[in-house]
Amino acid sequence: MPHSDLSFMHPFFLGAYAENDHVFEKTLLEFLRDHAYWRRNFHPENRPPIPTNAPYREDYNEFLAQMQQELHTLSADLKKSVPFFSPRYMGHMAADLLLPGVLAQIMTILYNPNNVSDDAAPATLAKELEVGTQLARMFGYNTDPSEEPCAWGHLTSGGTVANYEGIWNLRSVRFYPLSLAQAVKDLGIKLPDVGPKNQQLDQYSKWELFNLSIRDTILLMRKVTAHVKEEYEKKQFQAFSEAVIKESVAHLGMAGFFLRHPEIKQPKLVIPQSAHYSWEKAMKILGMGTAHIEKIRTDVHMRMEISHLKEVIEEHYQQQIPVLGMIGVLGSTEFGSVDPIHKMVEVRDEYAAKGFYFGIHVDAAWGGYMTSLFRLPDGGFVPHEDVCKEFKYFPHKGTWQAFKAVSEADSITIDPHKLGYLPFPCGAFVSKDSGVLDFISQKAAYVFDVKEDPLKKPAAKKLLGLGQYIMEGSKPGSAAAAAYVTHRCIPLHNEGFGRIMAHSMRACEYFYDKLMDVRRHLKELVTITIPFTPDTNLVCFAINPKGNPHLALLNHFSRKVFQHMKINPQQPLQAHDFFGSFTSLSKDALTDEDAARIFEELGINGDTFCHHVTDRTRESDHIYLIRHTLMNPWLMYEDNGMNYIDRYCAFLFRAIKTEMGRAIGRG
Amino acid sequence: MPHSDLSFMHPFFLGAYAENDHVFEKTLLEFLRDHAYWRRNFHPENRPPIPTNAPYREDYNEFLAQMQQELHTLSADLKKSVPFFSPRYMGHMAADLLLPGVLAQIMTILYNPNNVSDDAAPATLAKELEVGTQLARMFGYNTDPSEEPCAWGHLTSGGTVANYEGIWNLRSVRFYPLSLAQAVKDLGIKLPDVGPKNQQLDQYSKWELFNLSIRDTILLMRKVTAHVKEEYEKKQFQAFSEAVIKESVAHLGMAGFFLRHPEIKQPKLVIPQSAHYSWEKAMKILGMGTAHIEKIRTDVHMRMEISHLKEVIEEHYQQQIPVLGMIGVLGSTEFGSVDPIHKMVEVRDEYAAKGFYFGIHVDAAWGGYMTSLFRLPDGGFVPHEDVCKEFKYFPHKGTWQAFKAVSEADSITIDPHKLGYLPFPCGAFVSKDSGVLDFISQKAAYVFDVKEDPLKKPAAKKLLGLGQYIMEGSKPGSAAAAAYVTHRCIPLHNEGFGRIMAHSMRACEYFYDKLMDVRRHLKELVTITIPFTPDTNLVCFAINPKGNPHLALLNHFSRKVFQHMKINPQQPLQAHDFFGSFTSLSKDALTDEDAARIFEELGINGDTFCHHVTDRTRESDHIYLIRHTLMNPWLMYEDNGMNYIDRYCAFLFRAIKTEMGRAIGRG
Repeated sequence: MPHSDLSFMHPFFLGAYAENDHVFEKTLLEFLRDHAYWRRNFHPENRPPIPTNAPYREDYNEFLAQMQQELHTLSADLKKSVPFFSPRYMGHMAADLLLPGVLAQIMTILYNPNNVSDDAAPATLAKELEVGTQLARMFGYNTDPSEEPCAWGHLTSGGTVANYEGIWNLRSVRFYPLSLAQAVKDLGIKLPDVGPKNQQLDQYSKWELFNLSIRDTILLMRKVTAHVKEEYEKKQFQAFSEAVIKESVAHLGMAGFFLRHPEIKQPKLVIPQSAHYSWEKAMKILGMGTAHIEKIRTDVHMRMEISHLKEVIEEHYQQQIPVLGMIGVLGSTEFGSVDPIHKMVEVRDEYAAKGFYFGIHVDAAWGGYMTSLFRLPDGGFVPHEDVCKEFKYFPHKGTWQAFKAVSEADSITIDPHKLGYLPFPCGAFVSKDSGVLDFISQKAAYVFDVKEDPLKKPAAKKLLGLGQYIMEGSKPGSAAAAAYVTHRCIPLHNEGFGRIMAHSMRACEYFYDKLMDVRRHLKELVTITIPFTPDTNLVCFAINPKGNPHLALLNHFSRKVFQHMKINPQQPLQAHDFFGSFTSLSKDALTDEDAARIFEELGINGDTFCHHVTDRTRESDHIYLIRHTLMNPWLMYEDNGMNYIDRYCAFLFRAIKTEMGRAIGRG
Repeated sequence: MPHSDLSFMHPFFLGAYAENDHVFEKTLLEFLRDHAYWRRNFHPENRPPIPTNAPYREDYNEFLAQMQQELHTLSADLKKSVPFFSPRYMGHMAADLLLPGVLAQIMTILYNPNNVSDDAAPATLAKELEVGTQLARMFGYNTDPSEEPCAWGHLTSGGTVANYEGIWNLRSVRFYPLSLAQAVKDLGIKLPDVGPKNQQLDQYSKWELFNLSIRDTILLMRKVTAHVKEEYEKKQFQAFSEAVIKESVAHLGMAGFFLRHPEIKQPKLVIPQSAHYSWEKAMKILGMGTAHIEKIRTDVHMRMEISHLKEVIEEHYQQQIPVLGMIGVLGSTEFGSVDPIHKMVEVRDEYAAKGFYFGIHVDAAWGGYMTSLFRLPDGGFVPHEDVCKEFKYFPHKGTWQAFKAVSEADSITIDPHKLGYLPFPCGAFVSKDSGVLDFISQKAAYVFDVKEDPLKKPAAKKLLGLGQYIMEGSKPGSAAAAAYVTHRCIPLHNEGFGRIMAHSMRACEYFYDKLMDVRRHLKELVTITIPFTPDTNLVCFAINPKGNPHLALLNHFSRKVFQHMKINPQQPLQAHDFFGSFTSLSKDALTDEDAARIFEELGINGDTFCHHVTDRTRESDHIYLIRHTLMNPWLMYEDNGMNYIDRYCAFLFRAIKTEMGRAIGRG
């Protein structure tokens, strides 16, 4: 298949020209009618409550007329929407939607299932859990419940909530051994030898207990619980269960827990400098505090710098400051850069062997679906040299290794509403080990019957009361249907979803090369710099007028160029030929080295990059970048010998020339 | 209008028989085509990327065939769905959906706006904020930005997240004065007299600072910030800002904050016994800990018992234990009971005058929309005697007062996807004072340009970067469109939404009376007890075979009866004539008094109600109840002289007789 052959995607989307409207309309109508007749045939013997003469009544028609008017207004307003569907849009992480997903979602909305429990979603809750399994399989997790650990996953309203759950899950498991030990001690419970060292629980130090692995903690919990249940009377068992709960961080809170265990320092969360802002939000909201974030420098590719990670980890190890977990980013929001997950796993394993443990959560909100490009239909991982054949640059060996190593992480965030080309809301949280479920469950009498012993239930059965194990409550079954049907139609491996991802990567490589051409052609006029060569399908660049040494002016100029591609609700969409987005690199986000490298390329005087700006005409505390996401399926579509990237580059060329002309005109 | 006249609702819903399918189909088709032609006319000069001969290709058709098959499977599966649309369903909090809402949502999905910022949702973000204003107005908050405090609100994925935001907002504001004082002290900043006592900041004790009201805190922040900005150099101002952040709970975390301020005890959250389980989840997830929940007993109506509240508050006041906030429930999940918000407000005001302050958040996830029944189109509140005219029992004077007093609370949770008859996901958080925004904002360089001074921006402008002020990130503009259009078509006052609510209440009153009839008719066979007379539109009851003193048997029998109305995906939906839901009252949830009262009515020996069950055939730790939500619009529709409630009661009568027959048969 030649790389410019987009034919495989022809039936996937509604299309930039709504070419597949016949399919969409026919299918939607079919299922809408199907739904209507389902209602009608539920109890056909009953008379319909809305009488057949209702449409002849004035008040009935008045309401419909008003509704029509309101909907017309909405429809008119929606015409100001960002044209995500068009290859002229290369801004935020959105594009056209996959037909099976939109159709499934709309169809399901009519039934309005609530995936909080199977009671309210007999059809779609199972689909949500199956989506979790589909995603887990793509990432290389075990999904066979007869083997442990077995993965599970579910949908969230977005990646932000999935990130919160990543920390919440880690906290719930990792704080448990201390609570257990305290309860056992207080109640004078006699236990056999337990834990990885196979010794008495009170022989473990608090530091050791805080550094048990997730799996060891699960096994410890099961062994101790089973023992107490067997050896003690029911009342004592209940007293024991209650004591463990009373000692938990969920009960004591963060402050209560650390006041109770002053020997243990508050744990850190280790994230790369490039992590999404929701990680800071997470630490604020979860009561952990951003002071307990340890940021790792990024390298010249905006990837986590492993030497710095090792330094930080060693320092924490020396000082016995626990690390709750490390976040690896698989496709950063700004640059699409991919952290070396494989090296993070090595670091984890190295320190785990020394009794210093931390979880790994991969934030693959953006890049998660790219994994499909490496995954073989039989579950294998495509060898590096085979992947390389399809691309000019992609994937860097480390990128390939990073994707491969995700299966070694404890949990993952992925956003089907990003590179899964599905409608909002559709985020997902995937966990390697469903054994964690027992540490996070809630009780809600009105949804879940209270008769059962939770430890004996298999995960699949527990999860019928999904609301017990997640942050959210009521949630749309329609999102689950959308993701499920899409993954069934376009499977998450290199012959399915991987082809869309590969196409997107090729478009990005093409974009990169073309931008380099523009740069060459304009080199007498401006300097264009891509501060970080893309790992995936995002490109950011800065534009500096030749001879300008002031960062403030660079930013001013880049903003001016961006005006040519900015969504402006006051203007018709057609006023601009292309659309992009922007980002800023703040001083904190860059190492001095990186800043120096970027400024050298741009000809900027590094002294004009400062935290506290005093001269607004020269200095700035950030570098303004134009940012493009290359995910639209039709970017490489050629018309009259030019594809949309060619056209964009010509457009950018003109925009820069225009702005330079204006700048010179102004003197 | 006679109470059984349902004609005003005829055009509101698709209908139990999909009677309005013609409207639905026509409108949907119109807007689907409109969307398709919008795409087509975006750049009609470009050739469509999907060629016109695509439909003749084999692979194209193969994919569509597969998609069709998957969608057919989904459609078939969805036929197992809970028939929320039908008046035969009286289970969980779901019913048919309002036409304007479903249509707006589906239409908007095609454009797929992301309400995280106006950049990705130029049309729908404003609608989301307007929905916030519509709701705020219904609750009686000021929404005129020229007056302070001015309310704001936004949508969440559900009530659970809105509840989290309630605590998070309170925490962010209330912890601030301590952080401020610390930063001022550490930097030796000179201030004028500030705060409600108009004195030097260091003259306030920590206890006083922790007990400033929300409004006083906002004013303090503004005054101090403006002063430092004016009187100090820029660098010093920046150092000051950073110091305040460094001292914040968001930065220090809960543990860090209380280690730093050992003089202040960890604050409590006061909730009624009847509060939704998401409040405990909130305390766990936010790192506050369920140990810091203070549960208030409920009275014989399952409403917060104010005498107990006062005791608890007085105790905390005496012991100087801060109270972060009190949660008032406006329509509990299990019983629809309404807490006396007006009395909570009195308690707050009384203690605020003594320098002991706490916020009030109203969890109106269920009952919020009922407010429309009391709200006049001109913004006034319908007098109690006028509301009473429309009902037999509703509203109890206290219920009326409670609804009226919601405008005195600080923030509110409401779920448009419950009594707003809108599709999932659609929760909402409404805050009385948009001044709180400055305490919770995040920064995200890639979404928000970094040039502006946040304090100078009006709230409406800040909120264009909505993601900075909420827990979630990406979020569906489609939900906003649904709520907005619905509220435009059916306004949130007693001539709009209030009529639907009134109808639901009347159905509930009718249900209650009819159930009493069943009870009378069956009194020789079983005892039916409604443990809490409904405040709104939910009814729960227990059924005990005559002469049985054992709770375990009552539960067993009630479960058996419930089997007659339980959704069972293994059976055709028609296998059952009606559907309900169930709940359990655990021992912790009841006062001994209440338990005694209920058991006396039921003829149960209270000794069989115990925490630790030893004899499963007699004892139980919960009371099993059948639970009905009376929200379907067609419950009162009469056919052959019987409405659906009459039919249900006949059905229940038969089910009980059948189960009694079986029980006797078994001996």
